[in-house]
Amino acid sequence: MSAAPVWSVDPRTGNPREQVAVEATAEEVDRAVRAAHAVRDALADRTGRAAFLRTAAELLEESGEHIVEAADAETALGPARLTGELARTAAQLRAFAEVVDEGAYLDVHIDHQDGSRTPPWPDLRRYKIPLGVVAVYAASNFPLAFSVPGGDTASALAAGCPVVVKAHPDHPATSELCASVLRRAAARTGLPEDVLTLVHGFDAGVELIRHPLVSAAGFTGSVRGGRALFDAAAARPVPIPFHGELGSLNPVVVTGAAAAERAGEIGAGLGGSMTLGAGQFCTKPGFVLVPEGAAGDQLLKTLTETVSSTGSGVLLDHRMRDAFVTGVRERAALPDVGAPVTPGAGGEHTVSAGFLTVPAARLTAEGPHDALLEECFGPVTVIARYASVDEIAAVLARLPGNLTATLQTAAEDADPDAARLLAALTPLAGRILVNGWPTGVAVAPAQHHGGPYPATTSTSTSVGATAIERWLRPVTYQSTPEALLPPELREDNPLGLPRRVDGRRA
Amino acid sequence: MSAAPVWSVDPRTGNPREQVAVEATAEEVDRAVRAAHAVRDALADRTGRAAFLRTAAELLEESGEHIVEAADAETALGPARLTGELARTAAQLRAFAEVVDEGAYLDVHIDHQDGSRTPPWPDLRRYKIPLGVVAVYAASNFPLAFSVPGGDTASALAAGCPVVVKAHPDHPATSELCASVLRRAAARTGLPEDVLTLVHGFDAGVELIRHPLVSAAGFTGSVRGGRALFDAAAARPVPIPFHGELGSLNPVVVTGAAAAERAGEIGAGLGGSMTLGAGQFCTKPGFVLVPEGAAGDQLLKTLTETVSSTGSGVLLDHRMRDAFVTGVRERAALPDVGAPVTPGAGGEHTVSAGFLTVPAARLTAEGPHDALLEECFGPVTVIARYASVDEIAAVLARLPGNLTATLQTAAEDADPDAARLLAALTPLAGRILVNGWPTGVAVAPAQHHGGPYPATTSTSTSVGATAIERWLRPVTYQSTPEALLPPELREDNPLGLPRRVDGRRA
Repeated sequence: MSAAPVWSVDPRTGNPREQVAVEATAEEVDRAVRAAHAVRDALADRTGRAAFLRTAAELLEESGEHIVEAADAETALGPARLTGELARTAAQLRAFAEVVDEGAYLDVHIDHQDGSRTPPWPDLRRYKIPLGVVAVYAASNFPLAFSVPGGDTASALAAGCPVVVKAHPDHPATSELCASVLRRAAARTGLPEDVLTLVHGFDAGVELIRHPLVSAAGFTGSVRGGRALFDAAAARPVPIPFHGELGSLNPVVVTGAAAAERAGEIGAGLGGSMTLGAGQFCTKPGFVLVPEGAAGDQLLKTLTETVSSTGSGVLLDHRMRDAFVTGVRERAALPDVGAPVTPGAGGEHTVSAGFLTVPAARLTAEGPHDALLEECFGPVTVIARYASVDEIAAVLARLPGNLTATLQTAAEDADPDAARLLAALTPLAGRILVNGWPTGVAVAPAQHHGGPYPATTSTSTSVGATAIERWLRPVTYQSTPEALLPPELREDNPLGLPRRVDGRRA
Repeated sequence: MSAAPVWSVDPRTGNPREQVAVEATAEEVDRAVRAAHAVRDALADRTGRAAFLRTAAELLEESGEHIVEAADAETALGPARLTGELARTAAQLRAFAEVVDEGAYLDVHIDHQDGSRTPPWPDLRRYKIPLGVVAVYAASNFPLAFSVPGGDTASALAAGCPVVVKAHPDHPATSELCASVLRRAAARTGLPEDVLTLVHGFDAGVELIRHPLVSAAGFTGSVRGGRALFDAAAARPVPIPFHGELGSLNPVVVTGAAAAERAGEIGAGLGGSMTLGAGQFCTKPGFVLVPEGAAGDQLLKTLTETVSSTGSGVLLDHRMRDAFVTGVRERAALPDVGAPVTPGAGGEHTVSAGFLTVPAARLTAEGPHDALLEECFGPVTVIARYASVDEIAAVLARLPGNLTATLQTAAEDADPDAARLLAALTPLAGRILVNGWPTGVAVAPAQHHGGPYPATTSTSTSVGATAIERWLRPVTYQSTPEALLPPELREDNPLGLPRRVDGRRA
């Protein structure tokens, strides 16, 4: 049997560009994982890891032009967006280098022997150690920031875990380029290149999640694909943590007062956010509760203008284009559903943006309209017109978990419904926005990019400093002589780590 | 169909003592979960929760004598041990009250708007909120500390989550008593009693893990039972975190130098630890690598004396007694396995302690002797005699995950093998001990009671302050006006919480 070729495809034409690799066989996946496992001790040194991450950022920027060109050719996301994504990806690698340097993530706790406790305390010293080889499943829609050199990889390497990345088929050439940059960065900082390897192919992805030496996995993609891998991770003889980001509707509630105050601004902002990157953001506002009446009508008027003036766009691949066209057609055909700007097929290879409307009353109980409460990947959003705050609450109570939930409210203290609605939105998502738009995810310590299922399959985040927690486990040393303790846990704190001693910050 | 009765049984005779309850039907489980869910907001106030936990500790101590008597009657663990367990359980409730008061567990992060970042930061504020109703599956072997008023319950209530406990059939009367104490404590602190409810029955436990309003589960028990519930939690339409503590061999390595230095002390210490509580501790040292030769022989001589002088014991129930008797008989029948003190049936209702020996060489490759590497609940341990440090390493590499791993080494700096062996033990467990015994788990911030599967099904702990993390998820507020922010996240820090601001401790 000859190896299946992996082609880079131009989504603007549907034509293959070049063969960039072959799919990995089960033996090749096994070799990649074993090679990663074999070099795990090389990542034990924090200083070396931080240097590696910074060098990776540098080399990524050095090859920036070349990478952006390749990524644009196979994703059609455009050079401007991709240049920004590359800068973000490099900044993210550097942010994790800082996390490693500071060492707070090690979560050092020291409790001295204390016979007065119930029961008595022996000397106990805890910190966190890396889990082992991490499998990273790259995203389609962020060929850099959520793919080979992205947040899952950066946080896993920062934690001291070697990584095997399963490339996304929408950008294999970019993946190869980025993997070679990361491997070069490893070599330049004196680390073995196998701290990161890349494999291609659907079957390779399945082999990877089942491999006994894989200790954890990160995933960004669809609910269907992510759930299948989550199930495989849970079904292993030794189950492993599966941190998947699967799908999100990202509801927005526009209060009556907000619509009355700034219908035009909200309509224009929504139009910009939902069509950004051809609607292919995991944080696209896909469901918006807008009041019935004149102010809401005005909002829709501006939205109509904004969306109508958006040119047609190219989705990441033709399968997605087909799914989008079918998805919006089915939704638009439901009773009482309108399409002020009809989303759907543009040219032979493009799609055009649009939005659908529905009375919120159609969504307060189970029925065929529940399709409108499922994410539709691409430049479309659903506007549900509501008659009362109680109706908003009834619809929100039926929503699945989300990455984000947004409240559009009136100027400070002027909105009687704001507090109640914010309280209703909080259980629905991991990030709550007021008077902003969810597209755009800052890489910051206070960031949380995750949320109730199916937004994510765990309670952790894939963006921001705390993403490192996913790849660590605590270990406590009891009554261990100083000479045998890891330096992180020694009494005199030779590494100058932040720590808690006897239950207090020290 | 009439409700199935729940009997309290005396393990010293096998006779039923009294009917204490009936098994919960699916409808009753549903009612319990809905009632818990309905009162979740009552737990939102931290001051109220801390008062509740302290009152629960007080009332538990007030009813101590009565509870210990009931627990002894249905577990045969003895008043001394149970009195200690009650004190530990009360101290644990108070320790979580302190955790709630301090508020570090909220993990507050505030990042101010900063346009100089790549990409720019909006104002982001994160803390942790409770997940919702938690299902707690009580343990057989700790009727208090890992059951109704135990660590899972205490940490979940501390996190602000209502709890539905599934009682263990080995101590239903104790469970009823403790549940009533906790409900009384709730009422006395002005909280609804339904913040904690108790259900009985195997089927009720299955209903509970499948209930859509259950958000997470804690479990302490067998690998078989725990894995079944873990699988059910993962297979739900909306999977939930399942924090299970399932099984552990708790390996011990005695170096040649240690045996030469203090064979007698180690033999006696091991005998005491493995027979403690009739060998029914999850941290019982169940597998010990002892050097061949005279020093190792001397160790076994002391072990023989210690174990022989241990009286027969009563296990928690007759099913366990049968499993123990069968388990040790099958293991003892393997080729090359010796039994210097034969474990097995004592009297009609008791078991006698013992230990088995095997050459470590029998365990370096897959085979029938692998049964010796599986936990056998009860007063038995397996001594593997090794010829070299390489042989130790070969056996350790084949062990499953553990709660603890112990190194018995010689006096400081005198043991050439200590560092290498400690490094080989660390990947195997969540708590590493040097020259101690693993039975006895201090309730301390630096404690970690967990470990690689099957020790636990997650990377978290069920003992110590960080156990609270299991029942929380982060939520970030973006660009939210001060008036709409929860007090925990307001700029002027009205609650005086520890927090990180712009990436630094504040």
